[in-house]
Amino acid sequence: MKSGQKRVVIENVYPEINCGQHAAKRTLGQLFTVTADLLADGHDVINAVVKYKPINSKKWQEARMQPQENDQWSAQFAVEKQGYYQYTITAWIDYALTWQHNIERKITDGQRVNIELQDGITLLQEVIEKCSERSARTYLKELVILFAQEKSYALAVEEAQSEKLHQILIEFSVPTFATTYNKILPLYVDRKKALFSTWYEFFPRSTAQKKGQHGTFKDCLSVLPYVAQQGFDVIYFPPIHPIGTSHRKGKNNSVQAKPDDVGVPWAIGNTTGGHKDILPELGSLEDFQKFVEEAQKLGIELALDFALQCSPDHPYVKQHPKWFKWRADGSVQYAENPPKKYQDIYPIYFESEEWEEMWEEFVGIVLYWNAMGIKIFRVDNPHTKPFGFWEYLIAEVKKQDPDVLFLSEAFTKPKTMQRLAKVGFSQGYTYYTWRNNKGELIAYMTELTQGPMKDYFRPNFWPNTPDINPYMLQGGNETLYVLRHMMAATLSSNYGMYGPVYEQIDNAAMIGKEEYLNSEKYEVRTWDWTKTNKLTQLVAKINEIRKKHTAFHFTNNITFCSIENEHLMAYFKQSEDKSNNILCVVNLDPYKRQNGWVQVPRQKIGVKENVPLRLTDLVTGDSYIWHDEWNYVDLDPNQLPYHIFSIHF
Amino acid sequence: MKSGQKRVVIENVYPEINCGQHAAKRTLGQLFTVTADLLADGHDVINAVVKYKPINSKKWQEARMQPQENDQWSAQFAVEKQGYYQYTITAWIDYALTWQHNIERKITDGQRVNIELQDGITLLQEVIEKCSERSARTYLKELVILFAQEKSYALAVEEAQSEKLHQILIEFSVPTFATTYNKILPLYVDRKKALFSTWYEFFPRSTAQKKGQHGTFKDCLSVLPYVAQQGFDVIYFPPIHPIGTSHRKGKNNSVQAKPDDVGVPWAIGNTTGGHKDILPELGSLEDFQKFVEEAQKLGIELALDFALQCSPDHPYVKQHPKWFKWRADGSVQYAENPPKKYQDIYPIYFESEEWEEMWEEFVGIVLYWNAMGIKIFRVDNPHTKPFGFWEYLIAEVKKQDPDVLFLSEAFTKPKTMQRLAKVGFSQGYTYYTWRNNKGELIAYMTELTQGPMKDYFRPNFWPNTPDINPYMLQGGNETLYVLRHMMAATLSSNYGMYGPVYEQIDNAAMIGKEEYLNSEKYEVRTWDWTKTNKLTQLVAKINEIRKKHTAFHFTNNITFCSIENEHLMAYFKQSEDKSNNILCVVNLDPYKRQNGWVQVPRQKIGVKENVPLRLTDLVTGDSYIWHDEWNYVDLDPNQLPYHIFSIHF
Repeated sequence: MKSGQKRVVIENVYPEINCGQHAAKRTLGQLFTVTADLLADGHDVINAVVKYKPINSKKWQEARMQPQENDQWSAQFAVEKQGYYQYTITAWIDYALTWQHNIERKITDGQRVNIELQDGITLLQEVIEKCSERSARTYLKELVILFAQEKSYALAVEEAQSEKLHQILIEFSVPTFATTYNKILPLYVDRKKALFSTWYEFFPRSTAQKKGQHGTFKDCLSVLPYVAQQGFDVIYFPPIHPIGTSHRKGKNNSVQAKPDDVGVPWAIGNTTGGHKDILPELGSLEDFQKFVEEAQKLGIELALDFALQCSPDHPYVKQHPKWFKWRADGSVQYAENPPKKYQDIYPIYFESEEWEEMWEEFVGIVLYWNAMGIKIFRVDNPHTKPFGFWEYLIAEVKKQDPDVLFLSEAFTKPKTMQRLAKVGFSQGYTYYTWRNNKGELIAYMTELTQGPMKDYFRPNFWPNTPDINPYMLQGGNETLYVLRHMMAATLSSNYGMYGPVYEQIDNAAMIGKEEYLNSEKYEVRTWDWTKTNKLTQLVAKINEIRKKHTAFHFTNNITFCSIENEHLMAYFKQSEDKSNNILCVVNLDPYKRQNGWVQVPRQKIGVKENVPLRLTDLVTGDSYIWHDEWNYVDLDPNQLPYHIFSIHF
Repeated sequence: MKSGQKRVVIENVYPEINCGQHAAKRTLGQLFTVTADLLADGHDVINAVVKYKPINSKKWQEARMQPQENDQWSAQFAVEKQGYYQYTITAWIDYALTWQHNIERKITDGQRVNIELQDGITLLQEVIEKCSERSARTYLKELVILFAQEKSYALAVEEAQSEKLHQILIEFSVPTFATTYNKILPLYVDRKKALFSTWYEFFPRSTAQKKGQHGTFKDCLSVLPYVAQQGFDVIYFPPIHPIGTSHRKGKNNSVQAKPDDVGVPWAIGNTTGGHKDILPELGSLEDFQKFVEEAQKLGIELALDFALQCSPDHPYVKQHPKWFKWRADGSVQYAENPPKKYQDIYPIYFESEEWEEMWEEFVGIVLYWNAMGIKIFRVDNPHTKPFGFWEYLIAEVKKQDPDVLFLSEAFTKPKTMQRLAKVGFSQGYTYYTWRNNKGELIAYMTELTQGPMKDYFRPNFWPNTPDINPYMLQGGNETLYVLRHMMAATLSSNYGMYGPVYEQIDNAAMIGKEEYLNSEKYEVRTWDWTKTNKLTQLVAKINEIRKKHTAFHFTNNITFCSIENEHLMAYFKQSEDKSNNILCVVNLDPYKRQNGWVQVPRQKIGVKENVPLRLTDLVTGDSYIWHDEWNYVDLDPNQLPYHIFSIHF
């Protein structure tokens, strides 16, 4: 029988993902709020702390919980170390606070409290024994003497109710018969880039200056200044490994490749090597390392694609036949989603009896590139490999280098995407690409930032990818590109774009498909990296604004504001210290001028009615003074379909 | 490293109360539905079962899960044994079903499937090995031969897709690399009365025929036929134990009792005994047992009050001084909620170092009365005693007699009431007493029957209690009493009333308080148990209807129907087998005639548009034929403020 003297119960602890099986996520310096329902019998006063520590620390730190509404309590602390934290809750009936609460009510009622003062002496003596602060101890000792003297009753009654005593009793509470929550919960702290990153994707083979020529890492060097100037801090390359020749796909995904077709980078492996090797046409390992270094000098990290699948020519097929599934006719099972067939791809057979050896090898691939300076991996189709595998791989890699981040490329069912985040992916692609109108965007942002996902799923918003040429963009004008970019960059603190195609508004599409025509997935393209337009200027401008204004470094800090026009959407973002206040207003109609009245969240800004607010449009530099709660906005999409206001008062 | 070959993950299992710490509740014969999200990588077909068993059975039974929407799966089973059940989930990739799913899609696409048929042979042979049904085995063996013969390709293709094969593959699935959920969850099954009970409360001391005389158990015998005729199946008595004399309260809660004042039954204990003794004025233990027996003959159970507190004269105070809290002046701490004082009550000091001895004694009290034939206890103020104590006591008592039911008398904060239900209370009082208008009633019923509470909190609706003379009833006419009774009895399958006061519409109140004037809590009253009125007739009628119509035996089976009048509320209830369909329409305005159009839930009834429905008013016997989805109702409260329709087609 457990101690029957414990009277507080702790439940509905939040965050607690799958009963504590998975970790909540934060980045360095972020605040972490823990809430729980604390219940006890009767009317006694509860006291409670959240206990927390980096997993390897011996000493628990404490954050005192404060009562909120409906028996919910809350405490907050900042995370200052990368890696795992642990947290739990301890709560107890606070005898001294209960005593003070009751004596106050009796005194107010006009009752004599002589016996209560005697009771108080015993309680204060217990506090004195545990109290580590000299001045508090001295004060308590004085009270003990005071409470004992009948003649100083009036003063004793006053001191018994003092705020000073109240604060000492809270601070130096003696936990008796304390209940500790029955779980120690995990929290994982990443470096800041996990939550604030700006991605630019291009195919390294499409960087040659001469049309039709296969680009190299050396060519990529010449693209670097452009990407840096545009304000991106992550470059993501599709796979850079040898490409299979068997069943190689031709241009526009044709089944028969021509001799000069370069193949799909995701069909990894041929006689020159596999996942730890580089496609010879791109250059040498030294060229690769040179590119990584030069990018770093410009503040840009290279993210590699981690695509766990093999071309039929991959060395694994011969070295590790048991890592693939064999069919009745003695052939290897190629990838298929019947009736579709992908004969150029052999999926890994994850149910293989050699799974342990295989998992170690795959961890080794990531660690190999990590040793080359790569700390970000965009993982191709993680939802076609077991969740347990990812949980293991990500944990193993982070043990070696806690800086490594994984972006999950899973455009699939909601709960699968959520589970991938739970098992450790640092960021995930999202449905943003298909959320077009105001209702859809607000509903989706609310789901991401207000529901349970907010604690474990970090969205990364992309208006396009090499796999997705969204219908909306296929029919769009430049204004729409301007708009979809701006929303990706301001709704989500992580965002990216499949760069040259997007910036050049190259929206040629396969008929009836969300696929690009003449896609770089199947052929080498050549881009004029010096070409600028309205969009390229705005991309650079917005990335600059994002960097400077810390409200954009977070995603969950969004509040949608009322605005009385279905084409206008307004949202407010605020930095944790409330010093940076941003109001974005977008006109979702890329063709027509729209106007309406927007409600400014003055309470969140912390400014009273009628205090004038100065709003500065961070793109145009124009300034406005707003006196009221509701204010008029008018957006001509041909000029600019949005305002990004910084608010000062 | 756990087996990496397991590919299915199981999460969001429901019900799962506090991560499985507390049991879901059902009564004998009820259906229990378990849902969970099942996820796997890729496109393979999942198969899954809920495994369940009475806790003492060795063998697990299985209920196959069916996919619902959004990766949620569901299975259902009926509970047939009282006491604890256990349940969990096992899920796996079903190779054979995946094979059939894929071959179907390839055949539809016009592909040759020779190799797939070969693959199928291996899979079918695995199924044959495990298949326990001879005819299925024979069929599978025929298919193995068929699939192997090139000449019978056409037939093989047909049989590979057959529904017969599909059903065999589901039924005799071979679970490979199955995932079992990481928890075994508890379910507790009570006898049916836990969910369907009809309570009548009266003070046994108010049963004497002569005015002012103290009633006895013998007098109570003469009340029994009335209660039985009114259709109640539980009589609940306030405490029947010796009543303290120190600080005894007088009439209308006056601080000074007069010599002939009888005191408050909840101030338990005096020199003649404590919680295991009977107030001598009520009679002997034999008289008590006689009453229990006579009630049983009429189908009525006696529920006793379990009020864990003592008068200053209770034998415990001398025998077990450590069970009470002592103050600095050497007195025992009486009950208080400052500034209020209750000097006639000593609360139990649950933090006592003698808590184990104390807990055993309190369990002993319940078992003592249980040995006298008592199987229902109404627990007084359980929220002022530790949750852990109740969890222990209820479990210990149910080990001895699983028939015992506990009603929690906690009119307190929502989460406290919920926690009491979680730790084992079979039923709980509710806020029904204060839910008056349509919006309040629908919101509250929705919370109770659609949210998480539905699985562990069984409401018991009371329009009044000796402690609550609701303001609404204080100002009400007979129609309001008729209405509040009918709603308690038809919204909730458990309901009760503080009988004579309610039925006689004795609503004399203390000014400005929800208390009765001349309350039986402080004095003996005399009732004319032969007096009848419209209300008493309707109470009997509705209890008869409740008994006969099984839709009223459940609470969570409620659906509110649209009705276009804010004073009219309509709800539909259906038995689990869908044979009993009830529509209630109430006019919440006890003074004015109201009419409107009500929408009949034809889909739930399982009847198409335009099929005529026959509605019989079970109170008046009037019949109506309704052809449409929307139908006109008109209720004159002076006649009857409700319809209770039985629907036939």
